[in-house]
Amino acid sequence: MRHFINTQDWAVEELQALLDEAAGLKSRPLQPLLQGRTVALLFLNPSLRTRASFQIGAAQLGATAIVLEPGNGVWGIEFDSGKVMDGKAEEHIVEVAEVLSRYCDLIAMRAFPGFKNWQYDREDPLIKALARYSRVPVINMETIIHPCQELALVMTLQERLGRLKGKKLCLTWTWNPQPLSTAVANSVTMIATKYGMNVSLLCPSPDYVLDERFMKVAHENAASSGGRLAVTHEISEGYADADVVYANSWGSLPYYGDPEKEWELSRAYGRFIVDERKMAMTNNAVLSHCLPVRRNVEATDGVLDAPGCVAIDEAENRLHVQKALMLRLLGVAGR
Amino acid sequence: MRHFINTQDWAVEELQALLDEAAGLKSRPLQPLLQGRTVALLFLNPSLRTRASFQIGAAQLGATAIVLEPGNGVWGIEFDSGKVMDGKAEEHIVEVAEVLSRYCDLIAMRAFPGFKNWQYDREDPLIKALARYSRVPVINMETIIHPCQELALVMTLQERLGRLKGKKLCLTWTWNPQPLSTAVANSVTMIATKYGMNVSLLCPSPDYVLDERFMKVAHENAASSGGRLAVTHEISEGYADADVVYANSWGSLPYYGDPEKEWELSRAYGRFIVDERKMAMTNNAVLSHCLPVRRNVEATDGVLDAPGCVAIDEAENRLHVQKALMLRLLGVAGR
Amino acid sequence: MRHFINTQDWAVEELQALLDEAAGLKSRPLQPLLQGRTVALLFLNPSLRTRASFQIGAAQLGATAIVLEPGNGVWGIEFDSGKVMDGKAEEHIVEVAEVLSRYCDLIAMRAFPGFKNWQYDREDPLIKALARYSRVPVINMETIIHPCQELALVMTLQERLGRLKGKKLCLTWTWNPQPLSTAVANSVTMIATKYGMNVSLLCPSPDYVLDERFMKVAHENAASSGGRLAVTHEISEGYADADVVYANSWGSLPYYGDPEKEWELSRAYGRFIVDERKMAMTNNAVLSHCLPVRRNVEATDGVLDAPGCVAIDEAENRLHVQKALMLRLLGVAGR
Repeated sequence: MRHFINTQDWAVEELQALLDEAAGLKSRPLQPLLQGRTVALLFLNPSLRTRASFQIGAAQLGATAIVLEPGNGVWGIEFDSGKVMDGKAEEHIVEVAEVLSRYCDLIAMRAFPGFKNWQYDREDPLIKALARYSRVPVINMETIIHPCQELALVMTLQERLGRLKGKKLCLTWTWNPQPLSTAVANSVTMIATKYGMNVSLLCPSPDYVLDERFMKVAHENAASSGGRLAVTHEISEGYADADVVYANSWGSLPYYGDPEKEWELSRAYGRFIVDERKMAMTNNAVLSHCLPVRRNVEATDGVLDAPGCVAIDEAENRLHVQKALMLRLLGVAGR
Repeated sequence: MRHFINTQDWAVEELQALLDEAAGLKSRPLQPLLQGRTVALLFLNPSLRTRASFQIGAAQLGATAIVLEPGNGVWGIEFDSGKVMDGKAEEHIVEVAEVLSRYCDLIAMRAFPGFKNWQYDREDPLIKALARYSRVPVINMETIIHPCQELALVMTLQERLGRLKGKKLCLTWTWNPQPLSTAVANSVTMIATKYGMNVSLLCPSPDYVLDERFMKVAHENAASSGGRLAVTHEISEGYADADVVYANSWGSLPYYGDPEKEWELSRAYGRFIVDERKMAMTNNAVLSHCLPVRRNVEATDGVLDAPGCVAIDEAENRLHVQKALMLRLLGVAGR
Repeated sequence: MRHFINTQDWAVEELQALLDEAAGLKSRPLQPLLQGRTVALLFLNPSLRTRASFQIGAAQLGATAIVLEPGNGVWGIEFDSGKVMDGKAEEHIVEVAEVLSRYCDLIAMRAFPGFKNWQYDREDPLIKALARYSRVPVINMETIIHPCQELALVMTLQERLGRLKGKKLCLTWTWNPQPLSTAVANSVTMIATKYGMNVSLLCPSPDYVLDERFMKVAHENAASSGGRLAVTHEISEGYADADVVYANSWGSLPYYGDPEKEWELSRAYGRFIVDERKMAMTNNAVLSHCLPVRRNVEATDGVLDAPGCVAIDEAENRLHVQKALMLRLLGVAGR
């Protein structure tokens, strides 16, 4: 039994096989290969694309996906072991995982970090607890990383650019009025280096560099794949000659759990918005974003509505890669 | 590609063809003509009938409908163009519409008016924004009008009364402790005049007359169809010789956005409740209501439980007309 | 037409036939015997197992179940007859039941007691109102009793212990930081006595004895079945020689509606936690719980993770018994 929690647990050849399967499903979407199978989707946080694409993807494969929102119509969950459960959570992940394993063939979970204690959150403890007790494969629908988004990103870039090795990707920080997680930034950095891209991590200051564990993984990926990773705080340096611009908002780890202070820090950096002037510095780059995107805050209407924006394609590809993933985890081959 | 946003965009012959198809589906409900198709149901407001009947209707046709509630487990949506999105909404309707168009064959939305600014709401901007960016057909599940309810109403009245032309329909205002939209009142007035009925719009005072755009449409409909539209504030005049009484609560447009003041105004009008005494003035009329109905506030238990009440039939017919509509918008004919 | 509201309305032979059908479905879970059928699941309270198992069970039978949460995306419901509905509830159960009967083949509802007035709640008025107006079979998904849990409990005990007659079941009260209903305690007491078990109801004081109506039913059951029912406040007496320990938290009826006072009363009784020391007093008993369970408050990690704990099996069996029940209520036999 295999989980899909972190792309780092999968060889690049395995990931590419998933993407090839996804391409087949994109051209032939209706294949009832999972008739009678069921998938539990546990959402501890909001979602549009993930929620819709897993439900619809399951249906297109003949399976049934059910949505469960702990704390909203479903009992709240305790994830830590050994706790005296006299607080708010009515139920432990042990029972959630074991019971759903009796009902379902797959369990997927979205569990954003708690924005209180990064030392706790950086271990990704919630999805690990689920995987520990689940008897069926577990899919990460975004925790402190977003591996399904990684697959969709690579699929989309391969569709547009062909081979990715040596192509420059500028991952640019953008301002956001809400404190956001580093999940997508971590994921883009890991997967782009794994595919041998030349990654420029553009952010306003050292306060916005990613956690050292993810920086280390990305450097190791780059070393193996022949890619590169460099941090810059200069907008022109990040965008220069980029083949891909990936826009993403994320919070500063030194200010983790202190949103007011981070607001004071970050509001000076609105100039990091992706706009036509910056895109003109690139090698006619495609622009992407994991969505949802705050228009005219993270990126202008102009660049989002331009033909070079592939965010909608990437969102569509979520559907295809997740279907390939469900088939793979259940040991079923598409036709 | 055709949307279903307003019955005024459809010729009466086209609507009647939908109703004929609905009658076929009522007698043969299980027809898997939409196998593998998917429908996204976007609910910005509560619903029982719409939510249940679209999900079940889709299932009876072999399709899958998914429920998405922006602001409740799904990101909040901005609908206006050109906005700097630094407020509450995380996502723009552009991306919602384009992404769901990649996943689904149909997108339906319920978006009640905002009860702040009628000049804004009267343009029905939310559903129009969805339709502008959607690449698949859009269905209006109630905005400032409720076209699916219109279809169900006509189907129900034709089942009971046969040809509707020349029949008198009294649309009576009823008191309600909550401020409510004019959507169903607008819709009943438009569709009844379109089908040549003699419509008596009964309301407590000129403050409760509908927006001039809907009054104008209804007068034009009546002119084309040989129907009539008259406003009255006299209960006896409204009910006299009616073949149909349609009860509905709606808010006063001059008091739009000021619920306390409207409460002061409206609470004097509790006598507009539909009761046995008033029904006795009619031509043995059938009574209907779009539901939910506040018993003994809008209408008495006695009239709601009487055999002449067709509100449950109308609710049932929502299922059949919506199935016909989904088939029509996807270009599939029922058997 | 038959409802499933209380196991007392069903002969033990009928219940056993359901359990035999459930065993067949456990070995052959995918049987599309309800193709095209639909089930409405009304949840007025949280749920994990019930929500997941009814949706998945319906899917495995080829049917579609939809979730409706009155008060959360669905209009709030008034259950009392004759009310002037000028309060919070927008819709009466009359219309909810009649409309859903037009759309669905089955209606299931979870409606916990209101924790204000036990004299009202003890009549189980909400599910009775639904059953009164529904034109299709109604399933109780927990009100002041939990009959689906009863079926799963018996199935699980029969799997482990064979014939239940004469076996000792200790139903032990456990402390809980939240005020909880007596539903599962009522249900365990009724069904265990109905199956001829020797039931020891262990609770801290006479304040925790169950409502006299359920005590009376259980005594009558015991008289017919050759079982026994005794109340004890001595931990050693309850556990001694037990074949089954069933842990459950429930509120004190004399303190109903007064959670602060009950907290004062109950917090002295934390020693009722199920632990290894107490389990050692039994006849190598199996331990069960309806879930969710608060670990290290109601029972220790040690006893919950021991091989004798059958709570997960009981949760799984919810799926099978409910599928058997849906087939039975719709008059369809499994293969």
